[in-house]
This record gives sequence, structure tokens and C-alpha cells, in this order.
Amino acid sequence: MPDILHRVGVDAHPGRVFKALSTIDGLRGWWVSETTGDAGTGGTIDFGFCQMQVIEAVPDQRIRWRCFQGPEEWVGTEVTFALVWKDDQTFIVFKHADWKEPVELMHHCSTKWATFLLSLRDLLETADGHPVPHDLKIHVGD
Amino acid sequence: MPDILHRVGVDAHPGRVFKALSTIDGLRGWWVSETTGDAGTGGTIDFGFCQMQVIEAVPDQRIRWRCFQGPEEWVGTEVTFALVWKDDQTFIVFKHADWKEPVELMHHCSTKWATFLLSLRDLLETADGHPVPHDLKIHVGD
Repeated sequence: MPDILHRVGVDAHPGRVFKALSTIDGLRGWWVSETTGDAGTGGTIDFGFCQMQVIEAVPDQRIRWRCFQGPEEWVGTEVTFALVWKDDQTFIVFKHADWKEPVELMHHCSTKWATFLLSLRDLLETADGHPVPHDLKIHVGD
Repeated sequence: MPDILHRVGVDAHPGRVFKALSTIDGLRGWWVSETTGDAGTGGTIDFGFCQMQVIEAVPDQRIRWRCFQGPEEWVGTEVTFALVWKDDQTFIVFKHADWKEPVELMHHCSTKWATFLLSLRDLLETADGHPVPHDLKIHVGD
């Protein structure tokens, strides 16, 4: 099944990146401002347009979510953020896996994920994240 | 084989988008400043780090390249830009297909392609592309 892949390097230690991925306050800073829920292992996170179950949150190493509610194409997909310390930075190796088909929404979401990962990078490096609704727009009417 | 997918919407007619994809001057404006060669059907384009053969350049509809020289992981891969006029904009539906394996370079290139497609959008909408070497950096030392 097709996957969305990305990688961004952040000038921050894995602990800070992990915190931005595993706390509601962190997630509000780079992805969706109105996020609620519990971002620890076993918790559920409500991003408004979708809800994720936290399958794994291994400190400073890996976060894994499974979408259980949201756009039909997202339900059942998994999102993984693997953190790798290399060359004096934390690389976020990202995968949004198990799309059923490479539909046009998948193309859109792939580009959008890139902008959100760079929003996460900017949040950590310059305290200037741009979460929804202040996200970078990628088409007219986005 | 795994593919990189993206989609960006541009506030411009397909003819202008096609020109930015099918002329050396256009490509210099959003991807690589030092691009040389012939970007028409059957031509070869030298982007410095890689060379592409133009398999198809169907006016206002589709561009398809095949990489024949460059990073080992790129050789044999194909890049397609399909142009779709919808909702008063041109959607660029992008695919970099036929990677042998989902290696870490593929993750990096996926994020990088997103930034270049947004550079293309910015070139067409505001005359402010950011091609190499002025490209948006996505890790320390990029």
C-alpha cells in the first residue's frame, strides 16, 4: 500500500522534538491549534478533522498513531515519526502509511505534511510554528 | 515500487505553468538556477546533480522526464507533472515514480519536492521563486 514519506532535520535534541510530538501543547504549536486529548501511549488525540489513537510514544525515539476517525481515506492509516540523532541534529523520519490507493487527496496530504513538518522545525528552532488555521496554504481556497 | 506524490494549486492558467516546466528559463526560476539543455520533448536537461530525458511534453497537460544520470537512487526513476484546470486554478499533480526502495534519500527528496513545487507556485503567483542555491533548507547543512 502506498505511503507518504518525509524527512526534516531539526537543530534541537530528540527530547525537545519528542515533547512537541507527544504533548497536546506541543501539537497545538505546529499542526492544529485546537488539538485536544491525551498524546501519551494509549491516549486518543482529537485534531478536529480526524482522531488518532497513540499506538506508541517511546521517549526520544518514536511516535506512532493510528487514525480511527476522520476522512474515509485516512481511517486505518498509520502515522510514524522516528527520531534519529545524526550530524548534530534530530532527523524526523516521517511515514503516513497504508493508504488504500494513491488518490488525489494523498498527493495533497503529502505536500501538506511537508509544510507541517517544516512548521514543527520552525517551532523548535525559532518558536515560529504555523499550525492550522495559520498553516501555509498550498492551493487557492486551501 | 514506491512513489513520491504531491499536489499544489497555482493561480495561473495551464499555459503559464507548462512554460515554467518546459523551458530552461522556466526551470531556472524555481528548481535549479544553473539548469542547461533542451526541455522540449526528446531533449535532455542538465540540472547539475542529475540529467533528465524529456519523455513527453504535451502542451498545457503533462510533462514527463526520465532520469538517466545522477544519484544512483534516481537513475531510472520518472518524474511527471500533470496539469489539471479545476476550481479556477491549475493543479500540478506530481509523481516521482519507480524508486527501487523507500530509502532515507527518498524521504528527503519527498520533502524537498514539496518545497520546489511551492517555489514554482510562488514564481508564477508572485515572481518569487527560490531555486537552488536559494532553495528552502530542510535540515542543518542542506
